[in-house]
Amino acid sequence: MSEDERWMQKALELAELGRNQTSPNPLVGAVVVRNGELVGQGAHLKAGGPHAEVHALRMAGEQASGSTVYVTLEPCSHYGRTPPCAKALIEAGVARVVVAMEDPNPQVHGRGIQLLREAGIEVRTGVLSQQAALQNESFLTWVTQKRPFIVWKCAATLDGYIATETGHSFYVTGEAARAEVQHLRERIPAIAVGVETVLKDNPRLTVRSATAKRQPLRVIFDSQLRFTADAQMLSEPGRTLIYTTVAAATTANATALQQASGTQLEVAPMPTEANGRVSLTAALQDLAGRGIDSLLVEGGATLASALLQQQLIDKVVYFVAPKLLAGGMNALFGANHMRMTEAIQLRNVTWSQIGDDLRCEGYPQYGS
Amino acid sequence: MSEDERWMQKALELAELGRNQTSPNPLVGAVVVRNGELVGQGAHLKAGGPHAEVHALRMAGEQASGSTVYVTLEPCSHYGRTPPCAKALIEAGVARVVVAMEDPNPQVHGRGIQLLREAGIEVRTGVLSQQAALQNESFLTWVTQKRPFIVWKCAATLDGYIATETGHSFYVTGEAARAEVQHLRERIPAIAVGVETVLKDNPRLTVRSATAKRQPLRVIFDSQLRFTADAQMLSEPGRTLIYTTVAAATTANATALQQASGTQLEVAPMPTEANGRVSLTAALQDLAGRGIDSLLVEGGATLASALLQQQLIDKVVYFVAPKLLAGGMNALFGANHMRMTEAIQLRNVTWSQIGDDLRCEGYPQYGS
Repeated sequence: MSEDERWMQKALELAELGRNQTSPNPLVGAVVVRNGELVGQGAHLKAGGPHAEVHALRMAGEQASGSTVYVTLEPCSHYGRTPPCAKALIEAGVARVVVAMEDPNPQVHGRGIQLLREAGIEVRTGVLSQQAALQNESFLTWVTQKRPFIVWKCAATLDGYIATETGHSFYVTGEAARAEVQHLRERIPAIAVGVETVLKDNPRLTVRSATAKRQPLRVIFDSQLRFTADAQMLSEPGRTLIYTTVAAATTANATALQQASGTQLEVAPMPTEANGRVSLTAALQDLAGRGIDSLLVEGGATLASALLQQQLIDKVVYFVAPKLLAGGMNALFGANHMRMTEAIQLRNVTWSQIGDDLRCEGYPQYGS
Repeated sequence: MSEDERWMQKALELAELGRNQTSPNPLVGAVVVRNGELVGQGAHLKAGGPHAEVHALRMAGEQASGSTVYVTLEPCSHYGRTPPCAKALIEAGVARVVVAMEDPNPQVHGRGIQLLREAGIEVRTGVLSQQAALQNESFLTWVTQKRPFIVWKCAATLDGYIATETGHSFYVTGEAARAEVQHLRERIPAIAVGVETVLKDNPRLTVRSATAKRQPLRVIFDSQLRFTADAQMLSEPGRTLIYTTVAAATTANATALQQASGTQLEVAPMPTEANGRVSLTAALQDLAGRGIDSLLVEGGATLASALLQQQLIDKVVYFVAPKLLAGGMNALFGANHMRMTEAIQLRNVTWSQIGDDLRCEGYPQYGS
């Protein structure tokens, strides 16, 4: 690891401090280094609060002059809720700025770097850029694709079944794996399931940790509005958002459901696809507009299969339990590939043992 | 680890030296210890050759007198191809014998231990007995259940598919995992597949290592005798055994197949089950009679599902590839369980990463 990479690594670690609380802003970390010594450090902690560079420059004070600043994302160039960081860096008299990656936000997108260079500051980019992109995978998808980053979580038996033929699925995995799912939920602003999963499992879809500061938004894909007011999740803290078709949203049933459930529930009509289902892309765009930068899809097979087919699953978190069911419901269906080579490969795969179960994490490589 | 366990561990390691060459005899290792020092050691290397104890006593010579002998399996008490080891131990004047486990062979079954005790030798049993049983899992199944130990090997995508809908399965896993399957084949005297796999994949079912000393017996379950004389495996070294029904074995087709294929092929008629298929238990009993102590079942889903349903799969070696097929053929089917808790749990599970793929090894716990 080079000197630049070592300091950038520290900036990336600092950025992690804001995990789960900067949304819809990205995680950013910064360190100020002078004569090989750390003289300032900062992290962005909350949207509306100071950016990482500002914290770091403040700490460095006069020592910022002539220093090198390492920052995990391009300094901003625009007046948002705070003044532009590029301007702050110039005014502090820093000599060199090392940036992990450009900010894809159209309001920045290279302009921050340009400002610095025009002010005579040496700028190096692309240091640990892959790690930086991974750290902000949700933000980057949200900004560039105008939809949430989609994590599909699945739990299946070794022979690939998520439930029995009759739909029973309690429990596929052991306690440790289920606790991991709770951690996943804590780190993500919204959870989605298909209505079939609601009707079958009546899940709560909550974070059941005593320290949970908020509950994820519950998103239900329910084209025919089969959701009923006695669903267990409506008695839980947190809001529920049902995406349905315009036709279903204008029925008396929709009105009754809305009246019975109050403000904790929202029925949102969406455009319909040719197959009569809610348009996934429209719903995801709507979610992005609500500031939801990442979505955890927890079930069922119909929703996950449709998302995969539309190449909308960004990350897979798949738990495999060491048991054989020898029949039941598959995790995904409907692709009808002719050859094994048409399978969607996962990249950057990590396998980890969680209790007795195995977790596979990876990123679908579409068109591979 | 106690002193006894430490020495038994060495005896178990010695026993491994005979791996893959003692069949149908068990692996056995022995060490002779006097005053805390190793004075003799031996392993059983080949059926008909000296037993481990004899090698070890010979090496110890006069120092065997008053020594402790550690042996991984109860010393034999009968005249077989060699004289009884219990007798040799008594004659050598050993003071104490530590045995990992009793020999379930009805010709021994405690009698060896009894002989030693009657001769005034102190005997301790059950030291590292689980490891000893694992080491001889094939032999123990073969002796006690009169059938081969059955290892089911499977390779599936993360979402649980072993092939596309059209049956295409080249390749599910990567090179490293496929090399592991070759190692598996090297260690086992016979490989079984259903005829469907033969017709679909036309596999060679050979060990493709330059150092392979022998080819496993190829066992085909083919109730309707659909096997044809142009199957690729018939051009490969090694023998092929087809289990079919009496009805199918007496057709002109069977005679023609036999004549076209010569002595490398045997068509063996077996009793028929109610579903019209070859009786698996009869075929397995027949295999045991041929000295086959372990069988690697490589495919397909029909054969594996039938074996599992009859609780005949002893060990599972399951490769999971990090890819999604989203449709295709399942590894196992037909169980129709109502609840997830009815799944067959694997015990003593080990997960290992093999190249990009994951291997799960475990033992089905029937009735769990």
